[in-house]
Amino acid sequence: MSADCLFCRIVAGEIPAARVHEDELMIAIRDRNPQAPVHLLLMPREHIESAADLTDADAAIAGRLLAAAATLARSEGVADGGYRLVVNAGVDGGQTVSHLHLHLLGGRRMQWPPG
Amino acid sequence: MSADCLFCRIVAGEIPAARVHEDELMIAIRDRNPQAPVHLLLMPREHIESAADLTDADAAIAGRLLAAAATLARSEGVADGGYRLVVNAGVDGGQTVSHLHLHLLGGRRMQWPPG
Repeated sequence: MSADCLFCRIVAGEIPAARVHEDELMIAIRDRNPQAPVHLLLMPREHIESAADLTDADAAIAGRLLAAAATLARSEGVADGGYRLVVNAGVDGGQTVSHLHLHLLGGRRMQWPPG
Repeated sequence: MSADCLFCRIVAGEIPAARVHEDELMIAIRDRNPQAPVHLLLMPREHIESAADLTDADAAIAGRLLAAAATLARSEGVADGGYRLVVNAGVDGGQTVSHLHLHLLGGRRMQWPPG
């Protein structure tokens, strides 16, 4: 855990958030500034700063994040209609919290380009 | 391989594409309609239709796709500036080819919302 990381503090329960899933590797919460009718954030419990830090050694958490996204899309009712997964890395990507997280957006038709 | 799948045919070399990476699990090509100065598509060799099909059993390919994205961001010169990863699932997500693929976009400031 990184003491000054907002998402580490949410994972630890020090800051409240609307949790929709948790397991031994990750949690998922609702985005507080949703950009679609369904907008979740999936994040590892471990403090990984960015997608740019991922290597083959992170296959377990990468797999869990993507598998949980599929499960949550079903439980949120957007699996059939479709949804978009987004990971922002660094400034040009629009990353605002330095703790790896995956956005799941659904419930409306997403546009192209993706931002 | 799915014989009527565009990306399976690209993986098999039946349809030309600008490859920037290949290994035993996946390939990466340049998007033919780039939405950013760097716009790559990373896809498994295996025909997985959608991110909605991923389970924990797919951790190896999930991990490889994300690790390769980090490596390719560096080799394409966008790791420091930042970049965005996008996976579209189904119609609302904007998925146009039914073979799982991850977009890597960098080289410009990406906007929010992501489409």
